[in-house]
Amino acid sequence: MAAIEAARLSPSLAAAAYLARRPPRPASFPFSLRRRLPLLRALASSTGGDGRVVALSSSELRRRRGLSSSSGSGAADSATGGDEKLRSLRRLFARPDVGIDAYIVPSQDAHQSEFIAECFMRRAYLTGFTGSAGTAVVTKNKAALWTDGRYFLQAEKELSHEWTLMRSGNHGVPTTSEWLNDVLPSGCRVGIDPGVKFLEGTMNLIFCPSFVRRMQFLFSFDAAEELKDAISNKNHELVLVRGMNLVDEIWGEARPKPPKEPTRVHDIKYAGLDVPSKLSFIRSQLAENGCDAVVISMLDEVAWLLNMRGSDVPHSPVFYSYLIIEVSTATLFVDSTKVSEVVLEHLGKAGVKLKPYEAIVSEVERLAEKGAKLWLDSSSVNAAIVTAFKSSWNRHIKKKAAGKQIGEKEASSDERTTRGPGVQSEALNAVYNVSPVTLAKSVKNEAEIEGMKNSHLRDAAALSEFWCWLEEEICKSVTLTEVEVAEKLLEFRQKQDGFIETSFDTISGYGANGAIIHYRPTLESCSTVGSDNLFLLDSGAQYIDGTTDITRTVHFGEPSPRHKECFTRVLQGHIALDQAVFPERTPGFVLDVLARSSLWKIGLDYRHGTGHGVGAALNVHEGPQSISYRYGNLTSLQKGMIVSNEPGYYEDNSFGIRIENLLLVKELNLANSFGGISYLGFEKLTFVPIQSKLIDLSLLSPSEINWVNDYHKQVWEKVSPLLSGHSCDWLWKNTRPLLDGTP
Amino acid sequence: MAAIEAARLSPSLAAAAYLARRPPRPASFPFSLRRRLPLLRALASSTGGDGRVVALSSSELRRRRGLSSSSGSGAADSATGGDEKLRSLRRLFARPDVGIDAYIVPSQDAHQSEFIAECFMRRAYLTGFTGSAGTAVVTKNKAALWTDGRYFLQAEKELSHEWTLMRSGNHGVPTTSEWLNDVLPSGCRVGIDPGVKFLEGTMNLIFCPSFVRRMQFLFSFDAAEELKDAISNKNHELVLVRGMNLVDEIWGEARPKPPKEPTRVHDIKYAGLDVPSKLSFIRSQLAENGCDAVVISMLDEVAWLLNMRGSDVPHSPVFYSYLIIEVSTATLFVDSTKVSEVVLEHLGKAGVKLKPYEAIVSEVERLAEKGAKLWLDSSSVNAAIVTAFKSSWNRHIKKKAAGKQIGEKEASSDERTTRGPGVQSEALNAVYNVSPVTLAKSVKNEAEIEGMKNSHLRDAAALSEFWCWLEEEICKSVTLTEVEVAEKLLEFRQKQDGFIETSFDTISGYGANGAIIHYRPTLESCSTVGSDNLFLLDSGAQYIDGTTDITRTVHFGEPSPRHKECFTRVLQGHIALDQAVFPERTPGFVLDVLARSSLWKIGLDYRHGTGHGVGAALNVHEGPQSISYRYGNLTSLQKGMIVSNEPGYYEDNSFGIRIENLLLVKELNLANSFGGISYLGFEKLTFVPIQSKLIDLSLLSPSEINWVNDYHKQVWEKVSPLLSGHSCDWLWKNTRPLLDGTP
Repeated sequence: MAAIEAARLSPSLAAAAYLARRPPRPASFPFSLRRRLPLLRALASSTGGDGRVVALSSSELRRRRGLSSSSGSGAADSATGGDEKLRSLRRLFARPDVGIDAYIVPSQDAHQSEFIAECFMRRAYLTGFTGSAGTAVVTKNKAALWTDGRYFLQAEKELSHEWTLMRSGNHGVPTTSEWLNDVLPSGCRVGIDPGVKFLEGTMNLIFCPSFVRRMQFLFSFDAAEELKDAISNKNHELVLVRGMNLVDEIWGEARPKPPKEPTRVHDIKYAGLDVPSKLSFIRSQLAENGCDAVVISMLDEVAWLLNMRGSDVPHSPVFYSYLIIEVSTATLFVDSTKVSEVVLEHLGKAGVKLKPYEAIVSEVERLAEKGAKLWLDSSSVNAAIVTAFKSSWNRHIKKKAAGKQIGEKEASSDERTTRGPGVQSEALNAVYNVSPVTLAKSVKNEAEIEGMKNSHLRDAAALSEFWCWLEEEICKSVTLTEVEVAEKLLEFRQKQDGFIETSFDTISGYGANGAIIHYRPTLESCSTVGSDNLFLLDSGAQYIDGTTDITRTVHFGEPSPRHKECFTRVLQGHIALDQAVFPERTPGFVLDVLARSSLWKIGLDYRHGTGHGVGAALNVHEGPQSISYRYGNLTSLQKGMIVSNEPGYYEDNSFGIRIENLLLVKELNLANSFGGISYLGFEKLTFVPIQSKLIDLSLLSPSEINWVNDYHKQVWEKVSPLLSGHSCDWLWKNTRPLLDGTP
Repeated sequence: MAAIEAARLSPSLAAAAYLARRPPRPASFPFSLRRRLPLLRALASSTGGDGRVVALSSSELRRRRGLSSSSGSGAADSATGGDEKLRSLRRLFARPDVGIDAYIVPSQDAHQSEFIAECFMRRAYLTGFTGSAGTAVVTKNKAALWTDGRYFLQAEKELSHEWTLMRSGNHGVPTTSEWLNDVLPSGCRVGIDPGVKFLEGTMNLIFCPSFVRRMQFLFSFDAAEELKDAISNKNHELVLVRGMNLVDEIWGEARPKPPKEPTRVHDIKYAGLDVPSKLSFIRSQLAENGCDAVVISMLDEVAWLLNMRGSDVPHSPVFYSYLIIEVSTATLFVDSTKVSEVVLEHLGKAGVKLKPYEAIVSEVERLAEKGAKLWLDSSSVNAAIVTAFKSSWNRHIKKKAAGKQIGEKEASSDERTTRGPGVQSEALNAVYNVSPVTLAKSVKNEAEIEGMKNSHLRDAAALSEFWCWLEEEICKSVTLTEVEVAEKLLEFRQKQDGFIETSFDTISGYGANGAIIHYRPTLESCSTVGSDNLFLLDSGAQYIDGTTDITRTVHFGEPSPRHKECFTRVLQGHIALDQAVFPERTPGFVLDVLARSSLWKIGLDYRHGTGHGVGAALNVHEGPQSISYRYGNLTSLQKGMIVSNEPGYYEDNSFGIRIENLLLVKELNLANSFGGISYLGFEKLTFVPIQSKLIDLSLLSPSEINWVNDYHKQVWEKVSPLLSGHSCDWLWKNTRPLLDGTP
């Protein structure tokens, strides 16, 4: 999946179309994981008729969104559609307990998740715009939506005439705060829901989540604070509208219920490290940073830390929750209906207590009351939590000052000695630092690596069967759409052991569609896959033991010299990065140029990063590492990390090319080790043939030809044992050495 | 010259030994530059006996430094040597007009020059330590010197027992301010000369000047302010000891006179752009940034802007001066004895007035008085100027406030509208920004490029003659030391038209000496150049029309497989960078990995940057661009810039390898231009053979072999017309294609 997607490729309004159509698990499912079976069955049998987000196609979701609004908030809605929503929202502005002049509705949920549950898709509900990225701002007489270049066309179609489309990134387009300062008279009140993460200026930064998060941290970014500052220029006040989300108010009964999917234990044989060990590591981090507690709000971090998985959102095996770890206790904030006896026992063994999801704020207040120093990852924790801690801490300080009269000197020396490597907030008893889970999770242990390797081989078998099938169908001139092809791929994957769901919406793009980096075919408007142009397929899966993400580009007819030239240049970039050797402490961006050089040589490039982190049976995009032309992310690539290697080239209105494997960072045993340090390199996890006929051999060096031949040899050796019949023949044919007859 | 040298490789304590021995210019000097001839003669005939820095060998300088102290400050000096200097300095601490408890003596002059005049080598005079980098701090009972790993050995030898050597970069070694806080009782007064640029923490950063300068700017670095902050922790006060430098006081009559070398006009045929045009550009920059005046204090910037050259310091054709450009006037602050009638007329035509060098501070005060908004490059302008402006501005504001009573609102809105892209100082009517000359100077115009190309060909001819000679001598088993070899190289260069001097101290390192990146052979202790090991020669020259910098590594006998393997890896890095193609707006650090990849593949690396900027008939090291593994310098490589390409490999106690060419950044005309932008590449300026016998052909790809053959073909075509006899035969032999019999 292209690194550019790494932000929030699909906000999952169009949740897995494929899952909806997935047949019940075959009875032969061999994994000895009986306690997980009910969940898998539940997933597989969900029909899209119960209001849950899982198992709905884009079109279905869009249709139902329309239904919701007409069947939900009363008659006025059905008569005028979206614009009535604006009127309802504005009526709320005047309510005594609200009292605002404008309201900001971002795309995010409270956890900065890439894929979110339908009940949190407030911006989409309010505006009608279903793209993944966008921020809506409504004043008493204006309504504007900001989105980026990927969605201009879609937003134009979906927004009603009452909405102004703000084309972020275009020259002269104001930011939300600039616009507010411009359209509001001085001294207005601008409302936000502090429980929803808002990223001012996100539009230009979202192309890589790890990058955005890192930047926010580097600049001690607090989005709400920044917004407050920006609008204070015109004496506007930022109002945290607590206790209710105004869009939820107008959504009313029609608003989908929050997901209640059961959670499950992620078996230690895949997790590798038990929960007590992980908690103990976090506690050592707390001690090192002079902190008493940490709030974990990223859903994949909670899941990793507790060796649990869920299915509240599509594509990511996570569940809505918070986790607070203190020196001697740990508390999971989650809807108790999601926690089975088995999970409860698992948590109990690790000393993790349960509290309701909503209790997070009062618990944070309690921590402040007792004077605990809090570790906050300000890039992921929402404003509601920070402000709750802040105001409670201020009350605590006042009380303490009144009671004790602490000498100033003593207090300031305290502060110095407890100062950790993070940014110490003077006004707050907190240390702002990247979550202690982020790096730990990104460096995979042996069991996680084993799971990733195994799931990749099964995924490769599914892909071989799929490509074999597709080649035959196209050969027989069967008409297949991009969506049908993606659905067939899902079928092949479903036959693999331990398959759970897709890890993101499949990008199935023929010809010109392949040039749209964020292309997602829909039933209503998708192309037929033919043999006159290139076909780009970027897909991935969640397995019980691992997460995959692979892109291949193929041609079923006669590729043009242009196709071959561009494909070969992309392949050379892919090879150069794959073969890179680098000293420890090298940030990913240093290597990005290796993947681009071959394209630059002929004046070509691609507008996305080259690699993103991938979770082990977790999110398909994770930080903190990345390989990108953006050089803000200083995280070094470390032994055990997994990254994608996916250079591409996109010719507008013509074709798209991307070649993507996942790579494991490993330590090398070289003849020298200058500086007495480790030298690192990559080990491939993905083993699916690269189409030889697209390679212009005259451009490859002997060592590049060797790379292709060696890779295909490994593909054959590792994947052929999992195949039989036609697909095995296909694999044999597609792994023959270059210069050996075949190409 | 290695990029690592780019800071202040040689502080020129050991000023050009070679120049001292240079014979008078041959009568055949053909350049029609009669007015420059007297200067060149003056240079050539200086004997080192008149106290000027030019034309003194290291040993001579060291000898004379000893003489100075014994013949200068009285009898006490001669009895006890350096330690008496400490006593004299400490006596000054108590003087009523001084009143300090500690004094800091850095290495820099007032202009952050790489090479400085002897009269400013106060740290060397005081401590006896003659290395290029170091900071001395003296308290009433302690004396400590900070230097970095390059100089530990030398400092141990040169410091008396009263000095403590602080090994910067070693674990646990405090910074100067940490040390001061540690050894001084609370509430002390720490003195500095504000006219001397002091860089706290420089020790770890000096390896690339452009990088250091950029970082300082990025962090709005004001070294004196930082020091003030750091020592305020223990209530120490930073005292700017104005009007005198305490070391100068004890140096007394023995202190060398400031250089009085005449300046000259840099002909428009080499400069390309006349002074009025350059001034006009700077004024447009002032307008764009809402500034009324700019202070230029970097000597090469003054020289470039006024199309003037001088010879106040070795290796760089600059002269001590400041320049203030206002909207309608321009004033050069320089000793008037340096300005001939011709130069005066040249300046007059451009409307540049003259004032004494020392008048800079009062002029800056006058600017503050009249309310001028000043553009300050805080990375190069010294604290004396900034503080003079600051206190004068504060007086001005108080006066104005008393007189006028300006509304606060008006003042703050003023500030917003005049805010430029630089960092607006609230407390000061100034904009901190990189000097407007820096980038303009780095992007060469056609005349400058022409001059660089021409001078490089003459330099290549000199080098060919030199290598031919050296090979023959070694063949004849003549015993030659590293210094003798360097002196002979100077002789060959002196025969070239327009030669002025070396552009830095030649690094002539045989065998293990080649592994010392900052090696500088001395007469007393240098090796003989033999045929059993590698010989590394890094040298450069100042010509009337250009500046050169080249490194070649050769073997006069049978190189070992290890020599060949390492040399070939370095060559592959050199080729990869040379062939790089990259989109506009690419910072140099993005390309650094290309030069290292081939070494990393076998676990090797080098501890210096890969490329530095080079001036056109100016400083051999200039910013703002660089190609380095340090990624703090975001300056993009731009068409017309010149950079060095000098990867290396150094095996401690064994051998050193470096291959260096200078490259011109040029725009390419490619088949595509993705994104509608320019793609850039490099054009070689240096044309000297690379020794074929050191290449392990089995490691090179066909395209790398082509690169070598094509380069040698160009070398032959461009340089052979300038050669005859043996050296022409040598060039022929050394430019034959690889795989064509010769290697």
